Amino acid sequence: MSAKLHNYLQGAWIPHDGDGIPQFDASDGTLIGTCGSEGLDYSSILRYAREVGGPALRKLSFQERGRMLKALALFLSEHKEKYYTLSYRSGATRADSWIDIDGGIGTLFAYASLRRKLPDTRWYLDGEAAKLSKEGSFIGHHLMVPKHGVAIHINAFNFPIWGMLEKLSANLLAGMPAVVKPSEVTSYLSERVVRDIVASGILPAGALQLVCGSGVGILNELSEQDVVTFTGSAETGRVLRALPSIIQNSVPFNMEADSLNAIVLAPDGIPGTPTFELFLKEIRREMTAKTGQKCTAIRRIFVPETLIDAVQVSLGKMLAQTTVGDPRAEGVRMGPLVSKIQQQEVRQKVAQLLQHSQLVCGDLDQFEVNSAHKEKGAFFAPILLRNDQPLVQTSTHEIEAFGPVSTLMPYRDLAEAITLVNMGKGSLVSTIATTDPAFAQEYVMEAAAYHGRILILNEQSAPESTGHGSPMPLLSHGGPGRAGGGEELGGLRGIKHYLQRTAIQGHPTMLGQITEVYQVGGAQPEANIHPFRKYFEELVIGETLTTHKHTVTETDIVNFANLTGDHFYAHVDETALEGTPFERRVAHGYWILSKAAGMFVEPRKGPVMLNYGLEECRFTKPVYPGMTIGVRLTAKEKIAQEQRDENDVPKGIVKWLVEVFDQNNETVAIATILTLVRKKSSTI
Amino acid sequence: MSAKLHNYLQGAWIPHDGDGIPQFDASDGTLIGTCGSEGLDYSSILRYAREVGGPALRKLSFQERGRMLKALALFLSEHKEKYYTLSYRSGATRADSWIDIDGGIGTLFAYASLRRKLPDTRWYLDGEAAKLSKEGSFIGHHLMVPKHGVAIHINAFNFPIWGMLEKLSANLLAGMPAVVKPSEVTSYLSERVVRDIVASGILPAGALQLVCGSGVGILNELSEQDVVTFTGSAETGRVLRALPSIIQNSVPFNMEADSLNAIVLAPDGIPGTPTFELFLKEIRREMTAKTGQKCTAIRRIFVPETLIDAVQVSLGKMLAQTTVGDPRAEGVRMGPLVSKIQQQEVRQKVAQLLQHSQLVCGDLDQFEVNSAHKEKGAFFAPILLRNDQPLVQTSTHEIEAFGPVSTLMPYRDLAEAITLVNMGKGSLVSTIATTDPAFAQEYVMEAAAYHGRILILNEQSAPESTGHGSPMPLLSHGGPGRAGGGEELGGLRGIKHYLQRTAIQGHPTMLGQITEVYQVGGAQPEANIHPFRKYFEELVIGETLTTHKHTVTETDIVNFANLTGDHFYAHVDETALEGTPFERRVAHGYWILSKAAGMFVEPRKGPVMLNYGLEECRFTKPVYPGMTIGVRLTAKEKIAQEQRDENDVPKGIVKWLVEVFDQNNETVAIATILTLVRKKSSTI
Repeated sequence: MSAKLHNYLQGAWIPHDGDGIPQFDASDGTLIGTCGSEGLDYSSILRYAREVGGPALRKLSFQERGRMLKALALFLSEHKEKYYTLSYRSGATRADSWIDIDGGIGTLFAYASLRRKLPDTRWYLDGEAAKLSKEGSFIGHHLMVPKHGVAIHINAFNFPIWGMLEKLSANLLAGMPAVVKPSEVTSYLSERVVRDIVASGILPAGALQLVCGSGVGILNELSEQDVVTFTGSAETGRVLRALPSIIQNSVPFNMEADSLNAIVLAPDGIPGTPTFELFLKEIRREMTAKTGQKCTAIRRIFVPETLIDAVQVSLGKMLAQTTVGDPRAEGVRMGPLVSKIQQQEVRQKVAQLLQHSQLVCGDLDQFEVNSAHKEKGAFFAPILLRNDQPLVQTSTHEIEAFGPVSTLMPYRDLAEAITLVNMGKGSLVSTIATTDPAFAQEYVMEAAAYHGRILILNEQSAPESTGHGSPMPLLSHGGPGRAGGGEELGGLRGIKHYLQRTAIQGHPTMLGQITEVYQVGGAQPEANIHPFRKYFEELVIGETLTTHKHTVTETDIVNFANLTGDHFYAHVDETALEGTPFERRVAHGYWILSKAAGMFVEPRKGPVMLNYGLEECRFTKPVYPGMTIGVRLTAKEKIAQEQRDENDVPKGIVKWLVEVFDQNNETVAIATILTLVRKKSSTI
Repeated sequence: MSAKLHNYLQGAWIPHDGDGIPQFDASDGTLIGTCGSEGLDYSSILRYAREVGGPALRKLSFQERGRMLKALALFLSEHKEKYYTLSYRSGATRADSWIDIDGGIGTLFAYASLRRKLPDTRWYLDGEAAKLSKEGSFIGHHLMVPKHGVAIHINAFNFPIWGMLEKLSANLLAGMPAVVKPSEVTSYLSERVVRDIVASGILPAGALQLVCGSGVGILNELSEQDVVTFTGSAETGRVLRALPSIIQNSVPFNMEADSLNAIVLAPDGIPGTPTFELFLKEIRREMTAKTGQKCTAIRRIFVPETLIDAVQVSLGKMLAQTTVGDPRAEGVRMGPLVSKIQQQEVRQKVAQLLQHSQLVCGDLDQFEVNSAHKEKGAFFAPILLRNDQPLVQTSTHEIEAFGPVSTLMPYRDLAEAITLVNMGKGSLVSTIATTDPAFAQEYVMEAAAYHGRILILNEQSAPESTGHGSPMPLLSHGGPGRAGGGEELGGLRGIKHYLQRTAIQGHPTMLGQITEVYQVGGAQPEANIHPFRKYFEELVIGETLTTHKHTVTETDIVNFANLTGDHFYAHVDETALEGTPFERRVAHGYWILSKAAGMFVEPRKGPVMLNYGLEECRFTKPVYPGMTIGVRLTAKEKIAQEQRDENDVPKGIVKWLVEVFDQNNETVAIATILTLVRKKSSTI
């Protein structure tokens, strides 16, 4: 008997009602099971996420949520082997599944690590403060806080695990719950992973729900606090984006659609060069990986017209060697398409493409299949088309066969190559194979507006390249126009879809108290004891040490020059000052910084462990002998650090604002210094 | 004879066809003129922008475009008096017009100044580089480039000048042309300003076109490279956002709609306190400025239930003193609504609001009008409503009367106040009047997800506050849900709507050459002469000076401690190191920096003028006596500076990467230092 997939809703696993939708093994056509969503009450499902999951996640700080992601990634790593076994059924080879499974878990790890760039609070500040008034008593800043709704993720069949995890990474780190709606073709893989996620108990109740069947109606009950992400065909995305509930409530709709991604061979990549070889290999990989069922796969190949025949011959040879068959079998390089329906769909699209191109490699019917009955599976051979008039025969830039199909085309010069590539009207990615920086620069600057990502491929980058087709957690994934106009991942950029940016305005003292970060112009109450004597927990944002003063002497400057060897003319040569901004011998900026530290440091051993860096330092006024300087040291920001184990010293980062001022109380230097400060008590 | 407004299209002023739409003086109902857009060929208009304006703007660097904005702002400042004269006809007082006219020009100035945060190139880098590989031979970064389409700005009647200029500021700085479609009710003001802009000759051809009449059809020919902004009623915005051309091409639609903005009085703001007085004054200003026709106006007033009667009495008195009349007349505080149609519209909405509230101040019919025939103008008195059951009588949170109308409501505790405010389902702004930081923090953190901006009003912030209703160029303007879900302004954030973010991947040497910014891991060819001997123009990104070396001694550390006074225990007390991260007496971080400078500096007078700052400095490994350090100084980025006049030294900013390494070639410190370097030749 085949399995009935369960949906995970409102904290429970519930088998679907009705007959459901059957799911078949891509290689042999056997029934895997059924999924369904008949009769689901989406209104209650979304409410549960908003009322249970949201508040639970919002109680956690960004750092706590990051640690939660790390625990989840570690847990899934332990269980991943069984996903590989199941993944064969979708037609994926082990290498294909690696993108889906290890790629997905890797994205969780990457987002977990981003916690180190975020504070241990439930909000963070975006950018810098804006001075809104002359005297500085009215300023503005921007706060990022989680939205109070639910993220609804609608995913494509090709990456049932990566697609789910890369989206969850972002909304969970941001502090929003999600309802995941994978494609009904491969939702058995998403369900398998969610079963483990639920069993792990790592996520709070309501943080994640799963609908394995069709999602009709899931977007009808949206509120203005919700967010929708969509990955899939441009056609479906357009329908959903225009739904009344999306439009009425201004619901953000982050769409990522398959596009007609291009690769370009530059004129320097003649046969015999490493560039030429790398170019061919990249195409072979992108056409055959996941049997070409990737939103980022290469669909259009542009080469200098003088090289097109050479490329056709070499590429044709490589593609002809592709072993097609059951992905479980040894030596199979490319599995079947995901389903018989997809097979029909790709055949149709190839037929349409053939109106403007000719088939130069591969065959729609005559090809060998390894270790499987060809008729039972959704097998397809790699197909290379050629269009010699791509400026006028334009359907190549419009029709996509979502399989191992690509079209080879000639270009005359760089301008024409750019025009042709941009005729895709917005793509996720393009690659340019070249060693010529001028060619690459011109290409990148003119094609960038049409692309979410551009890879420059050559001998230098290839050994460690992650490839044309791979979205990376720290880089944006998405593209304009046909590619959907959305943006995912990109490191911290990816979590902003789930956050509201709110400008806050007021007096800097009040904004400092609200944000828990000292704001310039805010009150600086004098600390009762030296702040370096205080433990992390004891330090109060804004508390300030005002130091003794020091009258700068020529001796200071000369001694510093001699000690460091910095005899830059402005510090030592009084005959060289004409035409410089300096009236007299000027103190070294580094001396001002160093002397400031000498004035504000508490020398006794105490909670301050070390100074590990310095940021935003500016020397704002020349310091000459005879001037008198003092320093204000203000506790600016505290960021708790996690304690790895009992042997790890409990501590946090403290950022200090250092203001060096002169006898007229004018600032001569300003900097933010970074220290590690012990906590009084362990958190373990 | 009344005037026929012209449209400015494809470089020419063209009178409208047909009868057009009549425009009337708000105070006396006289005909001002007509506007129209009958028969316009939007397809050609948009193509002209894309093919003429776009390429011309994209040829300029960000800094050049910023200087263009500055010139435009200066030019319009010279001509602004005539806009004030004309603005009276829209019903605006001189103070109201200040927001529109000086506010608009001020935004141009603010965006012009943002050029200083941008490079002198046609692209800029967003965020930091991403290391994508173990050995560092494959990295990623993000490039920002102008989109190749046109920005279509659809504006509201209330700010025909500010609305146009604040949007133009952003798309012009970004490098995109625009077609402006002001409201047909007040487009005579936009037209007047565009006439001067065109006459100034400051913008390149095709950068700006103007359609003064109705905009029906203007969004039908969009491409995937275009951007639409919309300011106006939520209803109209929703219709436009769902247009097929928007949906099909994934066209970004940045919407800003009027919302039911709230103000909250905290319990500490009892009568007699400055907070109470400031709260009342803020409401009066926001209700009466622009006769309440502001997207940001206060529509909902929440006060502790114990204070509601006191507030009603005091606020009622203040509002009753509002002098309504012809804005040209001395002593008039509030002019008419913009038109008789608006007057009818606001009356209808008040009638709807009265189903859930009572009128407690003002009268719809009985009020005095100064220096005008009451019947001829669109006059309206300030109206205060009261709703004592705002949790159940909810139409107050849904219906907006776009005039001098606001509703007073009680709340029991902070949680209830937050619930009520958030029932607006997304607002542009709210204000909380309080001196209590804990109350303010809780309010801000829970209300932020529903707001684009929150003002904290009290005695400290009030003297320089720009007020609840004023969007600021450096702060985001927009809000979720009902407010449209868009975002404008916010400093550089505002230009990103007109830019494509494109991830680029490759070897760091190649990415450095493409972006013209040195990327870590890229080639560091040794400079032929000391780079401090080179002028700005001569420096090549990536060229590197590798210094001599220095074996660190105890003497270095002791001397530095003595010279600076920095006797922090880790540097001087060898008995204090137990439990610290240090094995031995450690060198001061500031000494490493200072010594590095002593090693890389060229002491002779030359093109390097000064070191004005330091960024992203990290001390990555302890330095002990006996270790040997050297420095690599690499030209990282060059940013040309504008030369103010002939006496101004021609120069640019050069950022240098400083890497201090030890005898094992491990990095012990890294920093970016900022210098000013002379240019060889003047640009004037």
